[in-house]
Amino acid sequence: MDDFKKLYGEVKERIDKELSLVMKNREPLSLYAPADYIMDSPGKRIRPVLVVFSARAVGGSFDEVLHASLAVEMLHNFTLVHDDIMDNSDKRRGMPTLHIKYDLSTAILTGDVLLAAAYEYLQKDLKGNAKAVEHFTRGLIEVCEGQSLDKDFEVREFVSLEEYLEMIGKKTAALSRMCCAVGAILGGGTDAEVDALANYGFLVGLAFQIQDDLLDITADTSALGKPVGGDLLEGKKTFLFLKALEKSSGEDRMALEKIAINKGAKPDEIGFYRDLFERLGVLDDARNEVEKLTFEALGQLSVLKNQEYIELFTSLANSLLNRTK
Amino acid sequence: MDDFKKLYGEVKERIDKELSLVMKNREPLSLYAPADYIMDSPGKRIRPVLVVFSARAVGGSFDEVLHASLAVEMLHNFTLVHDDIMDNSDKRRGMPTLHIKYDLSTAILTGDVLLAAAYEYLQKDLKGNAKAVEHFTRGLIEVCEGQSLDKDFEVREFVSLEEYLEMIGKKTAALSRMCCAVGAILGGGTDAEVDALANYGFLVGLAFQIQDDLLDITADTSALGKPVGGDLLEGKKTFLFLKALEKSSGEDRMALEKIAINKGAKPDEIGFYRDLFERLGVLDDARNEVEKLTFEALGQLSVLKNQEYIELFTSLANSLLNRTK
Repeated sequence: MDDFKKLYGEVKERIDKELSLVMKNREPLSLYAPADYIMDSPGKRIRPVLVVFSARAVGGSFDEVLHASLAVEMLHNFTLVHDDIMDNSDKRRGMPTLHIKYDLSTAILTGDVLLAAAYEYLQKDLKGNAKAVEHFTRGLIEVCEGQSLDKDFEVREFVSLEEYLEMIGKKTAALSRMCCAVGAILGGGTDAEVDALANYGFLVGLAFQIQDDLLDITADTSALGKPVGGDLLEGKKTFLFLKALEKSSGEDRMALEKIAINKGAKPDEIGFYRDLFERLGVLDDARNEVEKLTFEALGQLSVLKNQEYIELFTSLANSLLNRTK
Repeated sequence: MDDFKKLYGEVKERIDKELSLVMKNREPLSLYAPADYIMDSPGKRIRPVLVVFSARAVGGSFDEVLHASLAVEMLHNFTLVHDDIMDNSDKRRGMPTLHIKYDLSTAILTGDVLLAAAYEYLQKDLKGNAKAVEHFTRGLIEVCEGQSLDKDFEVREFVSLEEYLEMIGKKTAALSRMCCAVGAILGGGTDAEVDALANYGFLVGLAFQIQDDLLDITADTSALGKPVGGDLLEGKKTFLFLKALEKSSGEDRMALEKIAINKGAKPDEIGFYRDLFERLGVLDDARNEVEKLTFEALGQLSVLKNQEYIELFTSLANSLLNRTK
C-alpha cells in the first residue's frame, strides 16, 4: 500500500505538471484561458494513472503513454464541463464551474475544444495503433449515452436497478475501462492482458460509483466537502434509493415515493431516510455490491505476469473501496 | 457544368441515403432521436462531396471514403447544433433548432455524440492512416477557435479585416480544407496532390464565406429564404461592414459606427446601408475578393493529372461563385 501511494504520487506529480501546460501558449485566449482554468485545476488524476499503470503492467513505459494519459483527463474534463451545464451546477471542487465563471457559450465551446485536444494528444502516442483510438471513441460514445440516460432518469417515474447499473456502466465505468484498455494496448499488451485490464477498469468503475452513492449518505460532511445526503436533496435515483424502493412496501415505500414526487427530500428529512436505508439494509447491500465488484475486478489481474502491478492494482482497488470521501 | 451537376447529384443522393441511417437503430432514443432529427434533415452536403471528389481526383473511389464523407457531415452538424445554442438561433433551414425542439441539455449532448460518431465513422476508412485523422482533428480544433473568435468579435468594439479573415479561415475554410485533405489522403494522393486540394478547399471556403456576406445584402429575399440584410440587423462584423469601415470617414463612418453601438441596424435602415456599401464600393470589393480567391483556388488544380476532376472542381468553385442563395 505504501508502494502504491508513493508510485501514484509520482505519476500524479508528472501528470499534474504536464496538465498545467497543455492549454497554455494557445490562441485565442477567449477559448484557451477557460480551457486552462479547467486543466490546471487540482484533481485526483485517477484516469491518467490507470492509463500509465496499465501500460507499465504489460511491460510498457510512462513515456509511451504520456500523451494518451493526458488525453483521457482532457476527455474526462470535457464531460465535467458539459455535465455541469446540464446539471445546473455552480461549483465543482469548491470552485465556480465554467458557465458560471464565464458564460454558457464559453463553457460549451471549451468542452468541445478539450475533446478535440484529447484526440490531438492521443494521436501523439498511437504509432498507427487503430485499436487504441477505437477504444477511446467507444468510451466517449458510451459516456454520452450514459449522460443521456442519467438525464432521462431524472424525469422518469420509475427506473429499475438494472437500468441504473447500465447507466453507471456507460457514464462512469466505460471511461475507466477505456483508460485501462488504451494503456494496455499502447503499452504493448497481449489481447488477454488488454481484456483483463479493461474488465478490471470497468468493474472498479462500477464499484467506485456505488461507493460514491454510499458515501453521499454515510460520509462526514467535513470529509465529503459537501453536505451529507445531497443525492436525497436532489431526488437522485441512486443505487441506495432504487434498492430501497425494491425492498420496501407500505409506509416505507410511500415515504420513498414522496422523494420522487417532490423532486427531492427536505434537509430535515435526511436523518429519517438515512435510518430507513439502514433499516431496509440497503447500506449493507451497497457495501456488499462494492465488495463483490472489487473482488471480481481483482480476479481479472491473474492474467498479468508482473506481480508488482498485480499488487499495485489491488491497492488501487482497495483504496477506492476504503475511501471516506 | 452539366456533368458536375449530374455527378454532384449522384454523390449527394448516396450521401443523403446513408446519412438518413447513421443515427437510426441506436439507443438510448433520448440521445439518438434528436441526433437523427439533425442528420436526416436536408442539406447541401458540400463537405462530403468535397471528400468524395478529392478521393476520386487522385485515383481513389467513393467506397474508400464513404465513412469519412459521412464523418465530415457529422462534424459539420456538431458545429451547427452547438453554434445555434451560442447564437440563440431558433430556426435553421426553416426548421426549429435542436435546443428549441428539445432543450439545452439535449442539444449539447447531441452535438457531443455527433462529434463522437464522426470519429467512429472516420476510423472505418482509416486503414492505419494517421495523417487523415490528424487533419480531421486539426480541422475540428480550428473550427472551435474560429467560433471563439466569432463570439469574441461580437462584443469587441474594433475588429480589423485581417482578423476577420483569420476568423473565417478557421471557422469556415479550415473545414473545407480538411475535407479535401482527408479525401485526397484516403484516396491515395501524393503529398503534392493532398497539399493542392487542401489549398483549394481552404481558398474556396474563404470565397464561400465572403460570398455569403455579400448575398446577405444583394440576394432576393425569396432566393435567400431569410430577410435581406440580416447581418446588418444583427450588427455582424462581416467583410462588407469591416471593409466599409476601413474606407469611410466623416458621416459615413459615424453611420457605420452607429450599427456597432446599437448592436444592429433597424429594418428601415437596410436600404440606406445597402446604398452606402454600394457608394463606398465595398460590394465590388467583395465580388473582387471572391473572384480572386476562386482564381487562386483554381490555380491549385494544375497539380492534378485527372482532367475530368480539374473540370469538376472548376465547376464546383464556379457554382459557389455564381450562386444566388
